[in-house]
Amino acid sequence: MCGIFGVQGHADAANLTYLGLYALQHRGQESAGIVATDGRVVRAERGMGHVAEIFSRKRIERLPGTTAIGHTRYSTAGHSVLRNAQPIVVQTSMGPLALVHNGNLVNAAAIREQLEAEGSIFQTTSDSEVILHLMARNPRAETVESLRVALEQVEGAYSLLLLTSEGVIAARDPHGFRPLALGSFQGGAVFASETCAFDLMQAEGDRELLPGEIVAALDGQEIRSLMLPARRRVARCVFEQIYFSRPDSRIFGDDVSAARLAMGRKLAEESPVVADLVVPVPDSGLFAAMGFSRQSGIPFELGLIRNHYVGRTFIEPKQSIRDFGVRVKLNPVTGLIQGRRVVLVDDSIVRGTTSRKIVRMVREAGAREVHLRITSPPTAYPCHYGINTPTREELIASSKTLEEIRDFTEADSLAYLSLEGLFECVSGAPESYCTACWTGSYPVVPSSTRDDRQGQLFTVLADGEDEMR
Amino acid sequence: MCGIFGVQGHADAANLTYLGLYALQHRGQESAGIVATDGRVVRAERGMGHVAEIFSRKRIERLPGTTAIGHTRYSTAGHSVLRNAQPIVVQTSMGPLALVHNGNLVNAAAIREQLEAEGSIFQTTSDSEVILHLMARNPRAETVESLRVALEQVEGAYSLLLLTSEGVIAARDPHGFRPLALGSFQGGAVFASETCAFDLMQAEGDRELLPGEIVAALDGQEIRSLMLPARRRVARCVFEQIYFSRPDSRIFGDDVSAARLAMGRKLAEESPVVADLVVPVPDSGLFAAMGFSRQSGIPFELGLIRNHYVGRTFIEPKQSIRDFGVRVKLNPVTGLIQGRRVVLVDDSIVRGTTSRKIVRMVREAGAREVHLRITSPPTAYPCHYGINTPTREELIASSKTLEEIRDFTEADSLAYLSLEGLFECVSGAPESYCTACWTGSYPVVPSSTRDDRQGQLFTVLADGEDEMR
Amino acid sequence: MCGIFGVQGHADAANLTYLGLYALQHRGQESAGIVATDGRVVRAERGMGHVAEIFSRKRIERLPGTTAIGHTRYSTAGHSVLRNAQPIVVQTSMGPLALVHNGNLVNAAAIREQLEAEGSIFQTTSDSEVILHLMARNPRAETVESLRVALEQVEGAYSLLLLTSEGVIAARDPHGFRPLALGSFQGGAVFASETCAFDLMQAEGDRELLPGEIVAALDGQEIRSLMLPARRRVARCVFEQIYFSRPDSRIFGDDVSAARLAMGRKLAEESPVVADLVVPVPDSGLFAAMGFSRQSGIPFELGLIRNHYVGRTFIEPKQSIRDFGVRVKLNPVTGLIQGRRVVLVDDSIVRGTTSRKIVRMVREAGAREVHLRITSPPTAYPCHYGINTPTREELIASSKTLEEIRDFTEADSLAYLSLEGLFECVSGAPESYCTACWTGSYPVVPSSTRDDRQGQLFTVLADGEDEMR
Amino acid sequence: MCGIFGVQGHADAANLTYLGLYALQHRGQESAGIVATDGRVVRAERGMGHVAEIFSRKRIERLPGTTAIGHTRYSTAGHSVLRNAQPIVVQTSMGPLALVHNGNLVNAAAIREQLEAEGSIFQTTSDSEVILHLMARNPRAETVESLRVALEQVEGAYSLLLLTSEGVIAARDPHGFRPLALGSFQGGAVFASETCAFDLMQAEGDRELLPGEIVAALDGQEIRSLMLPARRRVARCVFEQIYFSRPDSRIFGDDVSAARLAMGRKLAEESPVVADLVVPVPDSGLFAAMGFSRQSGIPFELGLIRNHYVGRTFIEPKQSIRDFGVRVKLNPVTGLIQGRRVVLVDDSIVRGTTSRKIVRMVREAGAREVHLRITSPPTAYPCHYGINTPTREELIASSKTLEEIRDFTEADSLAYLSLEGLFECVSGAPESYCTACWTGSYPVVPSSTRDDRQGQLFTVLADGEDEMR
Repeated sequence: MCGIFGVQGHADAANLTYLGLYALQHRGQESAGIVATDGRVVRAERGMGHVAEIFSRKRIERLPGTTAIGHTRYSTAGHSVLRNAQPIVVQTSMGPLALVHNGNLVNAAAIREQLEAEGSIFQTTSDSEVILHLMARNPRAETVESLRVALEQVEGAYSLLLLTSEGVIAARDPHGFRPLALGSFQGGAVFASETCAFDLMQAEGDRELLPGEIVAALDGQEIRSLMLPARRRVARCVFEQIYFSRPDSRIFGDDVSAARLAMGRKLAEESPVVADLVVPVPDSGLFAAMGFSRQSGIPFELGLIRNHYVGRTFIEPKQSIRDFGVRVKLNPVTGLIQGRRVVLVDDSIVRGTTSRKIVRMVREAGAREVHLRITSPPTAYPCHYGINTPTREELIASSKTLEEIRDFTEADSLAYLSLEGLFECVSGAPESYCTACWTGSYPVVPSSTRDDRQGQLFTVLADGEDEMR
Repeated sequence: MCGIFGVQGHADAANLTYLGLYALQHRGQESAGIVATDGRVVRAERGMGHVAEIFSRKRIERLPGTTAIGHTRYSTAGHSVLRNAQPIVVQTSMGPLALVHNGNLVNAAAIREQLEAEGSIFQTTSDSEVILHLMARNPRAETVESLRVALEQVEGAYSLLLLTSEGVIAARDPHGFRPLALGSFQGGAVFASETCAFDLMQAEGDRELLPGEIVAALDGQEIRSLMLPARRRVARCVFEQIYFSRPDSRIFGDDVSAARLAMGRKLAEESPVVADLVVPVPDSGLFAAMGFSRQSGIPFELGLIRNHYVGRTFIEPKQSIRDFGVRVKLNPVTGLIQGRRVVLVDDSIVRGTTSRKIVRMVREAGAREVHLRITSPPTAYPCHYGINTPTREELIASSKTLEEIRDFTEADSLAYLSLEGLFECVSGAPESYCTACWTGSYPVVPSSTRDDRQGQLFTVLADGEDEMR
Repeated sequence: MCGIFGVQGHADAANLTYLGLYALQHRGQESAGIVATDGRVVRAERGMGHVAEIFSRKRIERLPGTTAIGHTRYSTAGHSVLRNAQPIVVQTSMGPLALVHNGNLVNAAAIREQLEAEGSIFQTTSDSEVILHLMARNPRAETVESLRVALEQVEGAYSLLLLTSEGVIAARDPHGFRPLALGSFQGGAVFASETCAFDLMQAEGDRELLPGEIVAALDGQEIRSLMLPARRRVARCVFEQIYFSRPDSRIFGDDVSAARLAMGRKLAEESPVVADLVVPVPDSGLFAAMGFSRQSGIPFELGLIRNHYVGRTFIEPKQSIRDFGVRVKLNPVTGLIQGRRVVLVDDSIVRGTTSRKIVRMVREAGAREVHLRITSPPTAYPCHYGINTPTREELIASSKTLEEIRDFTEADSLAYLSLEGLFECVSGAPESYCTACWTGSYPVVPSSTRDDRQGQLFTVLADGEDEMR
Repeated sequence: MCGIFGVQGHADAANLTYLGLYALQHRGQESAGIVATDGRVVRAERGMGHVAEIFSRKRIERLPGTTAIGHTRYSTAGHSVLRNAQPIVVQTSMGPLALVHNGNLVNAAAIREQLEAEGSIFQTTSDSEVILHLMARNPRAETVESLRVALEQVEGAYSLLLLTSEGVIAARDPHGFRPLALGSFQGGAVFASETCAFDLMQAEGDRELLPGEIVAALDGQEIRSLMLPARRRVARCVFEQIYFSRPDSRIFGDDVSAARLAMGRKLAEESPVVADLVVPVPDSGLFAAMGFSRQSGIPFELGLIRNHYVGRTFIEPKQSIRDFGVRVKLNPVTGLIQGRRVVLVDDSIVRGTTSRKIVRMVREAGAREVHLRITSPPTAYPCHYGINTPTREELIASSKTLEEIRDFTEADSLAYLSLEGLFECVSGAPESYCTACWTGSYPVVPSSTRDDRQGQLFTVLADGEDEMR
């Protein structure tokens, strides 16, 4: 998961992009970068860490111009190096181009292998770079046309922004996996993964790009919209509403907070329980727990406190200290929990180990009963479209029954929200969402060469210089 | 406000102190430091910023020994330099000593002036350093005796930990302004500003130090307790319950979350209002707003979302961009607020400007009415005991009537919790709390030379080297 | 000018490369880098500054393997960014490749333009990168064959080392502009720009690569030598002997120190002068001044002291201070100079301004006469093969007569070494050297598109991120 | 050994101090610092490393004011931490004071012990700090009087500069161990360890401070001179002429370069040898070798080349590589040396190991004979006045005869300059120099408690924070 933001036609483009990334920080804390242009020179600033740590006023001032794009990257295992930080900037026969990308291409490895066989040299291990190489191989008088040709060859999930010396071009894949919105601010065009970035600067008139839509905001031109061939079915990632997006964003036509409230209500309706308190697992479970509380009439309590200063911590105490595990992030409020029957509301169960730690912690704080309620169906299949899930084997729901999962998590009872129930809580038609992680029904299948390929790429990229920062 | 933590008699003393500071991060984000000793060498690691940024595994490993103390410092204006980061470490004729201190001494400037006249040289501008100089001037065979002599000369607020080559000595001033707790972990003694630090590591058997108590935990000795002459009245800072402490801590005999719930209930009882929603100003207003909601029957909604990634940000956009002000931290959930009558619950009003920004933001998000409810009495006097308040002139309640404040904040109605109501929500006797910031009745008066003195001290401390970090 | 070093077949490859770069530090102080491989993973460490500043033991330890190459880069104006620091590392269909390059290709811009038109994407503005792209476009089963194909397409100056997962391949252009030597150390093969790097580690059996020779030192194979088609005339840069190389190196068959001594003698013979002292402009003029002294019988004196700690200094005092200019580097020994007639021996005159400053400084120190003797002919044409000379207009000898130059430098007399005289001092045939900077007779002409092209490239590479380091 | 520089009464005081330290860089490369004042605020900038690395234009601009002092510190073993970098800045009842100090006090430990017993707290382990504490204990209306009182209590070597808010006060100990000069630049007063710093900025009218002289250059006052009681014999360190000072400096009345030439001549006269070449061990041996060559008629050759880029290098190759030892710094010019009988001229022999390495290296380069000539008598006693010599046991001349030393160094012959010969080469009376390192006759004896004390101090100062930088 990543956050992207762009501005075309505003004198403080880089500063606005900084603010936009700031609002999107929850979508990725590994690295961030901004590229800006004054139509003549393209300048980049990137770094590892949080947006507020990376960008000083001085670095922003080094990015003049009325056009800018930015990216904040999710921390995943492995290739966590500055070299892979976006935006990617390249020089082509069409001039300089910079790209930010949220999502994951499923045929990137195959295309890359083909392009390398033809002599292309890649700078990063990021799948996003293939789009730029396809553009470089297919130059057109209008850059937007070159992008269109490139996008017709890639498969998978992308919401992207392309910076050229003329402005910003935005695109969303035909499946519409990831969100991307367009707004207007003081005469300029702004683009963001989520509308909360617009709210920060009080941008106006926002709308979501359509699946398969390309929007070009270029210097001295009207905003132009093109459509990619719409041969794929729409498959929006409903986990945006369940988990990723900030509750104050509007995503796929829903107020995220309202959707979560509804999920909690529906869950209470589907899987009621006799208890004394409803306690959210913060922060994603907050609204859902309130919904559960309202529907069930069981009082809502903030029985778990989250430490918001969790950064790039190393918490790996020696053997003489107990495993603090989840305690570093969460602490139970004993006074609220002691002697009570508690309903814990969370968004999902992945491996089951974290859930078990939370259940144990609540029980150790004196809860008489702990009931687990999950606001999504059992996650049984990995995501190929940009969410960093473990392999199928590691997903507890891929091999265990509901009762076995309950037993593993040590909860007194466990219930998931049904797929049908979930779709009652969001405004789109059920068939317009991706359900792959629950059903294994993938809208588009990844190319098979991918994994071997990654092994090989790594031979180039063990670059201590980058890792050092 | 600062957070302090210490360990005596555990093989992972520095690592535990790191975890303790981590849990106390909310008490100060400016700088942090840890000092540890193996009984032979005293070693220090300090830095500017958050605990998790400053301490790598490598830095912790450079701090061997079974005794350690740590400090996390609040960001105040002015002397924000590494030189003032605690622990302070000095060499005396009694051997090396290190000190961490939460609070503010009111006669530090006068003592310092005297000591300097007698030829002492100070390393920092921190008032804490006078304690060490007083000890150096009054060496005793037992270090705890030297500390007692020193503490009998200082006035004001202190909860402190002193590291010697033999162990940790803790002390709390006779007024008991600031909290300090003692616990036990795997055979060692642990000290912390708040119990949430103990909960993280599941330390046990905690109790608060008494006002005026000195506790010595020294190598190979029983834990010893001494009392300073109890000639001062107890004056605990009830803002710990209202605002500073984490809701999962137990402070001055109260569960902080329960106290805040009670304050919200009481406020609803004292100053009811007809409205559609109760919305907390996060994070301190959360529990109080829930209490208000329960008492009043008006639904609780998370109508303001806080961006938790706010770090050491420079957000100072140029004139072409509007003043984002409070929006960088808070964003209203328009879908919840639009067309509604909203009760906003916050902990205090200082200058009034932030409150006005929040009221305006909520109104711009579509609220029909905005009612402000504050869970403390009007703050009309500056604090001299460790809270970073502005001067009396800047405090809005020092010169304006309730109606004038309401007018300034642009709220439709405004009410503060009464002093009597507040004291019904906490367990201690009203006369055991400090009420200076509301009543101007200071338990101990600051020495008058302080301000001039600060001006002079500054001449030494404009040290770019430190500011650079 | 740059320094390159490589090792194949030694357990401490990266450490040896570090030492080799250290000995070659005088060939470039802007940036340095080392790439090493264990046959599986290719790892890189690069930085801005001096070799000893960039590489800690820890960084060297991050570079395991028996194969390594390194580069130290000359500080030139403009593109002084980490991104351009070598080695360049890329991934191709033949596996990972890394390149270090000393010299300058004259048709790089034209090739790059062509490759970009065909869709290649470049990572740097360095001309060296085109070699890797040409290889990527022409993969062969044997990497050395791919390199041969690439080198047949480029024109200009190159002494280069290519690292593959199998070992190191070295190549020297058919003109032989820049030196490159091969030696043997404890069973491994070592490559270096100058033999002084071999002396440091006491490597043995060194020989220079022939112009147009490619040498492959691959794992488990004999060292193999190939020749590029030898259709170009040999044109070695005799400034290596005059100025660039360390006096203890053997270059193009000459001991550098002996060649400089001979130049000084020849200059005294051609342009004698009545004087009291011969004073070298350190460090390059040392041996030449000794030669001049011996031939003329005029005593040699170290009348100018060089400050060897000149680093990346900013010495740009405000107007209230006089222009220290050359004084930061050089200081006259007044006691030696006062009242004397001084012969200053230097290697060349570029713009004339530095020479004038030195002449003035010596005169202010009390010299009665100052005679300037230069150990090379007048530099009247810019170099296209890797020396960072200014434009023809800025070269004082391009437009001024000998007498006008003397007048400009304010010397009492001025003489240059004749071209014929110079060639008597080196061992090779006169026609085997490049004389372009004196005669304008360029062995190979640069492609005309170069300059426009550079302007365009700059649009991509204003990358503050790199500049920051 | 350290370098100190100060300015009073010039608008670019910090910038000039930067330039002065730059010229004095050879006196210390471990750390450097500048303190400046505008009469109101005292500001400091310090760092580890070379002057040019530490000070950016920005850091100099943070030091406004017309008064400044600076220090460059020699790299010694052990307490190499930022905390010990000078200037030391403290606050006293007389206002802020900053100190830079070249030399070593022999009774510092005893005074410190006494002061700590009376309750003083020290910031550093530097002996210089006791002077500030003595001043703090003895405040006077005129700071210069307080300094005088303090200096009357300390014994040993000091050339120091004290910055107050009014200007700069300079002092040189009554023995006059270390040099200190006063000059004038554009109306301001300048102070420097060596005159080469004045030459860089073309300061004028310099003179050396007298042994025991205190010079006060204060705002709006004439320069004032005071004398300490002259009860000690003058004992200037003649190693300044032999080794420490730059050859273009004037020290203790001598041109350093001329003195070295004379030492070489005298040595040739005292200990002639039949040989083919005279080769200096650079850089200190350069002038002496020229003198030896002139006197003996044996040709002078630069047969050893020094790598001037030696910085804070870690050269500690693994066992598989031979010990490069001295080769990293020096490389023989084989072409000059091969088959020749070589006279090596060096300034001193300490442990003998480096000399042996050089002799071996020259022999391996093909020398038929290697004769060692040393321009000072045998160093047999450690220095207590600021030179970093090893213990008596480690000094080879403390226990071995001349023949044994020759045997150890593997030279064909060895001769030292005689004490009488040495004093013929400098202008002062023999009894005005310290000869302790050759004769063991110490002008002032160190206090005995020193060593134990150091052990204890270390307990406080293992501060990883500083070591990290």
